[in-house]
Amino acid sequence: MTTTVHSSTPRVADALAHYDIKNATAIQVGDLYVFSGMTAIDLDTFEVPDIDLAGQARLTLENFGLILSDLGLSLDHVVKINAHLVDLEDFAVWNQVFLDVFEPPYPCRTTVGAPLVVGKIEIEIMAAAVPRR
Amino acid sequence: MTTTVHSSTPRVADALAHYDIKNATAIQVGDLYVFSGMTAIDLDTFEVPDIDLAGQARLTLENFGLILSDLGLSLDHVVKINAHLVDLEDFAVWNQVFLDVFEPPYPCRTTVGAPLVVGKIEIEIMAAAVPRR
Amino acid sequence: MTTTVHSSTPRVADALAHYDIKNATAIQVGDLYVFSGMTAIDLDTFEVPDIDLAGQARLTLENFGLILSDLGLSLDHVVKINAHLVDLEDFAVWNQVFLDVFEPPYPCRTTVGAPLVVGKIEIEIMAAAVPRR
Repeated sequence: MTTTVHSSTPRVADALAHYDIKNATAIQVGDLYVFSGMTAIDLDTFEVPDIDLAGQARLTLENFGLILSDLGLSLDHVVKINAHLVDLEDFAVWNQVFLDVFEPPYPCRTTVGAPLVVGKIEIEIMAAAVPRR
Repeated sequence: MTTTVHSSTPRVADALAHYDIKNATAIQVGDLYVFSGMTAIDLDTFEVPDIDLAGQARLTLENFGLILSDLGLSLDHVVKINAHLVDLEDFAVWNQVFLDVFEPPYPCRTTVGAPLVVGKIEIEIMAAAVPRR
Repeated sequence: MTTTVHSSTPRVADALAHYDIKNATAIQVGDLYVFSGMTAIDLDTFEVPDIDLAGQARLTLENFGLILSDLGLSLDHVVKINAHLVDLEDFAVWNQVFLDVFEPPYPCRTTVGAPLVVGKIEIEIMAAAVPRR
C-alpha cells in the first residue's frame, strides 16, 4: 500500500493557489481516493460565478470530473458525495442536478445545510479505484 | 478489489424513491462500507414522524440496522458515525441514545449543528467488513 | 484485515470521559484510520479555553498529534481534514494555522460553517498507515 498525493490538475491547482489554498486535490489510500471539498470555481477567472444553484452545482461537478480524469478516473468511480447547501430551499434543484450528472447505479450521498466561505454549495467526494458502474 | 453498490434494502429504497431520492444505500470498497446519510424516516408511512430527538435518533439507527443486516453486517461493524443536529440543545439526548444503541467499544463519532431538509437529525455512518467488537 | 479500536490515549480519554463521551478515539480499517471529531480541549483542565480561533485550532491539532503519536503515526499521515467553523470570518486564520502546522504536500481539506456544542472549531481527520510525505 502506498499513499499518493495528487495536487497536479493544473487549472484547479492554479485556481486554489490564487486564494493561498494549498490542500492536496486528492489522496489515494489503497483503493480509496479522498478529495478536498470544492465549490463552483470558474477555472478561467478563478471566481465563483454569480449564477444559480443548478449552475454552481454543475460547475463544481465538472471540475471534479477534470480532477478525476487527471487520475484516470471518472464520475463513475465516485462512491460518496456530500453536499453542503447555503439555502436548503435549493435541495430539489440539487437533487435534479445529481440525477442528471451521475448515472445509475448512483453513488451514496448526504446533503445538509451549512454557511460557506464562498458560493451556494460545497461538494466533497470519495472515489474507488474500481468504478461502481 | 471490487466496488459493490447496494441499493436493495427494499423498504428503505421504497421510502427514498417516494421522494425521488435514488442514491445508493451503501457502497462497499474493499473492507470499507460507505452509506448515504439518513434521517428518521418511518418505513411504513414514508414520513418523518413528529417525535422528539431521542425518538428520531433511535428510528434512524434502527433503519441503519436494517440496511446493515441486509449486507450481513450489524451496528457492531460501524466504525464512524457523524450526526448533524438541527438544535444543539439536543446533544445530551443524542449522546444518551448513542450510548444506549451502540455497545462498547464504541465507534468514532462527530457531532455538529446543521440546518436539515427534514427532521431533527441526519446521521451518516461508515462500516468495516470486520466488526469492531 | 482487522478492525482495531483505539481508545487509549490516556489524557484524551480522560478529558472525554469527563463529559460522558465514550467514542473511540480512532479506529483502523486496513490501511485507513478514522477518528472522532475533536474541538480544542485543554487536556489538563478538560475545558475549552477562551482563546481565539488560531489558538483553538492549534490546540486541537496538537491533541490530534498526541493521538496519532499513540498509534505510531504523525500529522504526516493525515490524508483528509474537515474543519467546521462557528464563524466563517475565521477562515483566513484557520487557513494560516493549517499551512503552519502541516507540511507540504498538504492533506486534502474541506471547511464549512456549523454551530458547535463547544468551541469555535471542530476538526475531523482521516489518516493512512503510510505517510503522505
